[in-house]
Amino acid sequence: MLLYDSQVSGNCYKVRLLLAHLGVDYERRELDVIDRSNRPEILGGLNPGLRVPTLVFDDGRSLGESNAITFHLAEGTPYLPDDRFERAQVLQWQFFEQYSHEPYIAVLRFWLHVGHITPSPHELEAKRRGGDAALAALERHLQGRRFLVAERYTIADIALYAYTHVADEAGFDLERFPAIVAWLTRVTQQPGHVPIVA
Amino acid sequence: MLLYDSQVSGNCYKVRLLLAHLGVDYERRELDVIDRSNRPEILGGLNPGLRVPTLVFDDGRSLGESNAITFHLAEGTPYLPDDRFERAQVLQWQFFEQYSHEPYIAVLRFWLHVGHITPSPHELEAKRRGGDAALAALERHLQGRRFLVAERYTIADIALYAYTHVADEAGFDLERFPAIVAWLTRVTQQPGHVPIVA
Repeated sequence: MLLYDSQVSGNCYKVRLLLAHLGVDYERRELDVIDRSNRPEILGGLNPGLRVPTLVFDDGRSLGESNAITFHLAEGTPYLPDDRFERAQVLQWQFFEQYSHEPYIAVLRFWLHVGHITPSPHELEAKRRGGDAALAALERHLQGRRFLVAERYTIADIALYAYTHVADEAGFDLERFPAIVAWLTRVTQQPGHVPIVA
Repeated sequence: MLLYDSQVSGNCYKVRLLLAHLGVDYERRELDVIDRSNRPEILGGLNPGLRVPTLVFDDGRSLGESNAITFHLAEGTPYLPDDRFERAQVLQWQFFEQYSHEPYIAVLRFWLHVGHITPSPHELEAKRRGGDAALAALERHLQGRRFLVAERYTIADIALYAYTHVADEAGFDLERFPAIVAWLTRVTQQPGHVPIVA
């Protein structure tokens, strides 16, 4: 398999982390996340969103969207429950991540940490408020739970771990969220865990 | 089943449209999409995102996120393929919708058509540019295809139809996208189709 990748992208890290747990070999090709002018040429036939991660299988089929990729790769493995309702709960958290978490925490981290873009005070405040709401929702759910779904480590945890564990790079203080901090530690203790920079 | 619903929400419409196709009876409870102050009280124990749609099953279990709900309800029906890779492609389009389509087209429609909020020129331009990119990606994919995945009508089509068919309410001119216009008609011709206002 070939992964169109970015070292700094939490979305790409979700795929790399799951593949590390699964012990699957693959090739990585780094794409620029600042200058995206070559995206239509490289990803045009592979992923309608023209984003990384994009995974190309050995038979030529391809898949975009980090959470669709991890759902696909995790089927039949310990990282995705077999129970139909638990799978729906995994998806609920994956969609929560892409709609209510990533657009605030990941985008703010990209601006401040990767792209060195200075947002307007209005934009900064909107991202901070949205990120705080996402972290508060996560904190509430993790109080009294070990993992997000079915009390076991799944791709739902991988999805939310990816940008939560680097939320300090977006200026969020995780010490306000003790259940999240304890959960982040549990995630790093899973067999085969690799850091985002691996 | 009880659906916490909003008549104007395309995300809620995805669930209502699938339930209409499936001929499933359910109760609807309308929540205000402008004044959301009662959300923690009503949805706090049901959906971490505090959003509509939220579906509550008769046994008390609940599920949030429109695309997670439709994926769950569609399992084992003609609206979700059995093939593992086709299911991943359905998810790819659902995640594309929530990340690259809805935040532009649905949010702009909400501002202009529902909330009567006047965006700044900068915000308006950003939403228009993102919406145009999403529609262009959809148009490219639908050229030479009848439906988004596996040449059959699935919840991927339902996900993208929900806000594309009302994109004019956000100021987008769909006449520029003939493959989308033809696909919208095919969607309305599916047995059991109901309009967003039903």
